[in-house]
Amino acid sequence: MDNIRYRKGISNLDKIDGEIGKKVIDSLKNISPETGQFIIEFAFGDIYERKILDLKQREMITLSSLITQGDTHNQLIVHINGALNVGLTRNEIIETFVQCIPYVGFPKVLNAISTAKEVFNSRK
Amino acid sequence: MDNIRYRKGISNLDKIDGEIGKKVIDSLKNISPETGQFIIEFAFGDIYERKILDLKQREMITLSSLITQGDTHNQLIVHINGALNVGLTRNEIIETFVQCIPYVGFPKVLNAISTAKEVFNSRK
Amino acid sequence: MDNIRYRKGISNLDKIDGEIGKKVIDSLKNISPETGQFIIEFAFGDIYERKILDLKQREMITLSSLITQGDTHNQLIVHINGALNVGLTRNEIIETFVQCIPYVGFPKVLNAISTAKEVFNSRK
Amino acid sequence: MDNIRYRKGISNLDKIDGEIGKKVIDSLKNISPETGQFIIEFAFGDIYERKILDLKQREMITLSSLITQGDTHNQLIVHINGALNVGLTRNEIIETFVQCIPYVGFPKVLNAISTAKEVFNSRK
Amino acid sequence: MDNIRYRKGISNLDKIDGEIGKKVIDSLKNISPETGQFIIEFAFGDIYERKILDLKQREMITLSSLITQGDTHNQLIVHINGALNVGLTRNEIIETFVQCIPYVGFPKVLNAISTAKEVFNSRK
Amino acid sequence: MDNIRYRKGISNLDKIDGEIGKKVIDSLKNISPETGQFIIEFAFGDIYERKILDLKQREMITLSSLITQGDTHNQLIVHINGALNVGLTRNEIIETFVQCIPYVGFPKVLNAISTAKEVFNSRK
Repeated sequence: MDNIRYRKGISNLDKIDGEIGKKVIDSLKNISPETGQFIIEFAFGDIYERKILDLKQREMITLSSLITQGDTHNQLIVHINGALNVGLTRNEIIETFVQCIPYVGFPKVLNAISTAKEVFNSRK
Repeated sequence: MDNIRYRKGISNLDKIDGEIGKKVIDSLKNISPETGQFIIEFAFGDIYERKILDLKQREMITLSSLITQGDTHNQLIVHINGALNVGLTRNEIIETFVQCIPYVGFPKVLNAISTAKEVFNSRK
Repeated sequence: MDNIRYRKGISNLDKIDGEIGKKVIDSLKNISPETGQFIIEFAFGDIYERKILDLKQREMITLSSLITQGDTHNQLIVHINGALNVGLTRNEIIETFVQCIPYVGFPKVLNAISTAKEVFNSRK
Repeated sequence: MDNIRYRKGISNLDKIDGEIGKKVIDSLKNISPETGQFIIEFAFGDIYERKILDLKQREMITLSSLITQGDTHNQLIVHINGALNVGLTRNEIIETFVQCIPYVGFPKVLNAISTAKEVFNSRK
Repeated sequence: MDNIRYRKGISNLDKIDGEIGKKVIDSLKNISPETGQFIIEFAFGDIYERKILDLKQREMITLSSLITQGDTHNQLIVHINGALNVGLTRNEIIETFVQCIPYVGFPKVLNAISTAKEVFNSRK
Repeated sequence: MDNIRYRKGISNLDKIDGEIGKKVIDSLKNISPETGQFIIEFAFGDIYERKILDLKQREMITLSSLITQGDTHNQLIVHINGALNVGLTRNEIIETFVQCIPYVGFPKVLNAISTAKEVFNSRK
C-alpha cells in the first residue's frame, strides 16, 4: 500500500503550499484525480521529502525552473506563496529571479516579478 | 569608465568558474570579444556581485535554470564545476537536479546527471 | 493552381475543428490572410490529408506537441475540440496529458487539464 | 512497501525499452540511483501501467513530446526503439514526426528524422 | 561612474519604446528597481547603442526572438510598438512573423499576429 | 500540379543554402522524402518567395528564431552559411546574436557564436 507516500505528501503539500496547494488538488477532482494523487505522492511524497536540501532551497530551485520554462503564471503563484511559507524572504525571491537574468534574459524575469508583485500584494 | 565592473567581474569569474571560465572568455576573443566583456561586466560584475544570496545559492539557481532550458551541455560543464568551486557538494548538485523532476520531467534531468558524471570524473 | 490543396484543407479543417477552426481563419482576414491560407493548404491540405495515421492519432500527437511547447492555451482549445470532433473520448484526451507527465513535468499538464475542463464544460 | 510499483515498472521498462532502458537505469547506479528508481516506479510503474491508452499510443505521445521539447537526442533513441518494440512501424514513427511540422516547424522534425535514421540502421 | 550607460539607455528606451517602455520601468520601482536599471543600462545602454545593425533590424530580431520563446505577450506589445516607433511598417512586422512559420510552427505565429492586431488597433 | 511551387523552392534553396541545403534534402531521400518536399515547396517555395522582406532580412529573422529555440546546431550551420550566401557580413551575423542576449540570455548566444566560428573557419 502506498498510503505512507500519500500521507507524507499531503503533509508536505500542506506545510509548503497551504490553502492554494489544496485548491490545485481539488480542481483536479472531477477531471483527473490521479494527477492530483501523483502530485501528492510523487512530487510531495517522494521528492520534497528527501534530505540533502531543505525546503527553502527546494522552493528556490522550483522558482528558477518555473521562471525558465515560461507559461507558468499559475504555478508561480503557488510557489511564490510556497517560498514565503517555508521562510524565504521577499528579497530572496526577487533575487532568485534577478540571478536568472543572464541565463534566460529579461522577458521571463519581468513576467515573474510581475507575478511576485501580485502575490506579495495579495498577502498584504 | 566601467573598469570597476570589469575588475569585479573578472574576480568573480575567477573565483567561481576558474580556468574553465577563462577559456570561455578566451574562445570569444577573435569572434565576439564584447560578448566576453558583457559576461564579465554584466553577469559576473553586476549580478554575481549582489548581496542577499550567496554564491552557493546563485550556482544552485543557475543549474536549475540551465537544466530547464535545455541545450546547455557546455554551460552545465562550466557551472557544475563552478558549483563545486564555491562549495556545493556533489550530492547537493545531484539533488538540485532531482528537485527539478516534477517540474521538467525526466529527459532534461537525465541529460544533466550524465553531464555531472562527466564533470565529477574529470575532477578525479 | 493550388486549389486542390485548398479545397482538401478546408474540408479537413471543417471536419476536424468545425466552427472554431473557421473563426481562427476569419480572425486572420484583415491582418494576415496568407497565414490563414497556409494553415488551410499546408497544415490541413498537405499534412492532415496524409495516410498512415488516422485523425484520432493526429489529434493525439497535436495535443502532445501543444502541451509540451507551452503558451498554447488558444490552440489547445481548438484541438481539444478537434480531438472530440474526430472521436477521441474525454478520458483519452486527459490520458494523453497524463502520459506526458514524466516527460514534461506537472506544470504544463496542469495547464492543459485546466483548459480541457473549460472545453468540456463549454460543450455541456 | 512499494515493491509492486517497482516490479510492474521493471516489467514495463523491459517490455518497452528492452536492453537500452536497462542501460539508462544502470548508468544512474553510481551517481543517482533514486532517479533510476523514480523512472521505474513512477514513469513505468504508475504511468505506463495505466489503462485507456495502449503502449503504441503511449509511445506515439512520448515521441511527440520529446521532439517538441528539443535536446532529447538520447531519449529519442530510447523511445524510437521503444516504439518499434511495442509495434509501431517505421512509417508510423516518421509520420508522427511529420504531423508535428505545423506545430513545431522543420528544425526539430529534421533532428528527429535524423535520429530515427540512426536507430533504424542500428537495428539492421 | 556608470551614468553614461544609464543616460544612453534612457535615451534609447525613450526613442524606441516611448511611454510603454517607461511604464515597464515604473512598474519595477517598488519591487525590483535594479532590474529596471539593468534593462536601461545593459539592454538599452550597452546593446541597442551598438553599431553594425540599425534600430529597425534590432527590433526585427527582437520580435523574432520573442515570438520563438513564447509566453511573451506583454513584451510583444512593447516591441511591436517599438518596431513601429523606429519605422518598421505593419506589413514588415507581420512578415517577420510569417518568416518564422517554418521554424516555429503556426501556434506561436498565431499568438503573435493576434497581439499585433491588438497593438495596431490601439494605435488607431 | 504543384510544380511551380517546387521549382521556385528549389531555386530559392539553391540560391540561399547552396550545397548544404541540397545535402539536407538528400539526407531525407530514403527515410522521409515528403519532408524534403515540404521544405522545398512550403518553406522555400511559399515563404522565402514572398515580398516585403528581402533575403538578408529573412536570414536574420531565421537566425534569431533558431538561436532562441535552442538545439539547432545543424540548422544554424545551414543558415549561417545561408546568411553569408545572401550577403550578410560576419559582423552582422554576430551582431544578430548579440542583439538576442537581453532576450534569451548568454547560454544560447554562446552556443550560436561557437557554431558561427565553426562555419566561418570552414569557409577559409
